[in-house]
Amino acid sequence: MSPAFDAGGLAGRIAGGEPLALARGISHVENESDGFEALLERLDGRTGRARRIGITGPPGAGKSTLTAALTRHYLDQSLKVGIVAVDPTSPFTGGALLGDRIRMGELSTEPGVFIRSMASRGSLGGLATATREAADLMDAAGYDRVILETLGVGQAELDIAVSADTTAVVLVPESGDGVQAMKAGLMEVADLFVINKSDRPGADRLEKEIAIIMSIRFANRPATGAAGDPGDGAEAWRMPITQTVASEARGIEEFAAHLDRHFDWLRSTGRLEANRRAARLRRAHDALLRRSQRDAQRIWRAASPETLDSGASPYAIARRLYEDFREGLRGSLRGT
Amino acid sequence: MSPAFDAGGLAGRIAGGEPLALARGISHVENESDGFEALLERLDGRTGRARRIGITGPPGAGKSTLTAALTRHYLDQSLKVGIVAVDPTSPFTGGALLGDRIRMGELSTEPGVFIRSMASRGSLGGLATATREAADLMDAAGYDRVILETLGVGQAELDIAVSADTTAVVLVPESGDGVQAMKAGLMEVADLFVINKSDRPGADRLEKEIAIIMSIRFANRPATGAAGDPGDGAEAWRMPITQTVASEARGIEEFAAHLDRHFDWLRSTGRLEANRRAARLRRAHDALLRRSQRDAQRIWRAASPETLDSGASPYAIARRLYEDFREGLRGSLRGT
Repeated sequence: MSPAFDAGGLAGRIAGGEPLALARGISHVENESDGFEALLERLDGRTGRARRIGITGPPGAGKSTLTAALTRHYLDQSLKVGIVAVDPTSPFTGGALLGDRIRMGELSTEPGVFIRSMASRGSLGGLATATREAADLMDAAGYDRVILETLGVGQAELDIAVSADTTAVVLVPESGDGVQAMKAGLMEVADLFVINKSDRPGADRLEKEIAIIMSIRFANRPATGAAGDPGDGAEAWRMPITQTVASEARGIEEFAAHLDRHFDWLRSTGRLEANRRAARLRRAHDALLRRSQRDAQRIWRAASPETLDSGASPYAIARRLYEDFREGLRGSLRGT
Repeated sequence: MSPAFDAGGLAGRIAGGEPLALARGISHVENESDGFEALLERLDGRTGRARRIGITGPPGAGKSTLTAALTRHYLDQSLKVGIVAVDPTSPFTGGALLGDRIRMGELSTEPGVFIRSMASRGSLGGLATATREAADLMDAAGYDRVILETLGVGQAELDIAVSADTTAVVLVPESGDGVQAMKAGLMEVADLFVINKSDRPGADRLEKEIAIIMSIRFANRPATGAAGDPGDGAEAWRMPITQTVASEARGIEEFAAHLDRHFDWLRSTGRLEANRRAARLRRAHDALLRRSQRDAQRIWRAASPETLDSGASPYAIARRLYEDFREGLRGSLRGT
């Protein structure tokens, strides 16, 4: 199969920092165009420099306003920022009220900022895989920070959040949020908490609530981390809680400082290296499963109406098609 | 590969209505035990009698209280009810406050009710597939109504909701919900709306909001449905909005009546048959992809440490393993 594009040429232009090339590359990855894995492979050696930050939380927590404020903070430090937005309620993805969208629009024209929203449908390899690979391309393109903004509900969405080096969970002071967050699995993915819109009543109460929940969880864990953890014996991570008003950039310095502290902690305890090695294996695993999915999908598209309308049970149809698939492999290998 | 259990015997006991057999069958499906597809295949001819109802909405909308109230209503009509709960915040799945859990516990001891919560992780075929197959088993076991309760955020969760014959979206009067629901894709999946906790302020306002949003959407659609739709020329479905206070069983009769009306509409317009035919194809498709995933996963588990730690890019590793996979097929076919 001849590739749909020149992977080598595009990789070079992405590595050279051309935003248009980056945008095209991400589209190829998202669409799984022929040759997209060759592109990822060529850029593989250039990844690992960016720090990846997941920002997640329930709808209405102000995740994108926080992302925008954090991005401004990084821009002030002359850092380049890539943003992958997979939250259907995010202004980055177009689902926003007009005011939000204008604010984000301003950010998107800044040099040093690259924003990409990911569709949540259609990828065979799954949204989490495509999102991680979009982040890989941004990383290879020289963005210093890559922020993954995802809605903190739903398994696929949480998978994205945990693929970052550091995951921040954003909540708002409204009642019940701490317990809701715990129930929705947000506590498990958090490296740090942000209480946004903290000028509303209840912020201090929520902070206490989170601290209590976390201390209970913490008490049930061995103090030195899980068995076999590279951080055995090293200082444990005390999860910070930051109050912010992202729309006024309040608390952003502190939030950014905690992110840096967490990254330093990951590095000094050896966790960063271990996590990233595990992430590379995860990539290989996902790429393998995606390949098999792609072949199966090809068989499905080539299935005859007679087979599909045979009246056989769905499982019998699948079995017959899969035998065709295996026969096809035998045929194609015979020729080799 | 010899199956882990006697599919024929278990299928017979499930068809005979034995709850313990049903529970075991669902576990086999969830775990993809050897032989689980044989079980599904044997029961395939017995499915299609249950009406499937999806209940979805944001966290805190009271989906499980509504599910419980609707279940009581059906029990009063001597109908058997199966419940599949995939909402991590649902009391059915154990993530509940004590009061809720006790209420659900009462329901779970009723004869004629079968409750099953599905884990949201681990299934290769995906949560939506496993959930649909759990519903198939309940259907085959003679449950007249199967309620799929899912959290209405996240793509996998919405996929479950739309696999039902009728999907009800549950909202609460709190501000912004209509717009949030629209943004989260809930409007696209709804066949009818429920405004629960409607004794709180704002219920009428939300009802108007939904009606306006729906009328705008409706105006953009051809009145007779999509092209090629079996309902061409037939009466269009006017989406009802029901106000309920599920904790006091208020509005449940009306909600149930709308569910019946929708089912009658599906049947009379030919949509029910068309939807179910499409769902059978979807099952075959998903079963095919799951088979290929399972084989790929087997290859992954058998991968040597040398391959995995070779320092090659993840994509090169996946490619090499996939070649092994194909070679393996060739080898196994040589022997046939």
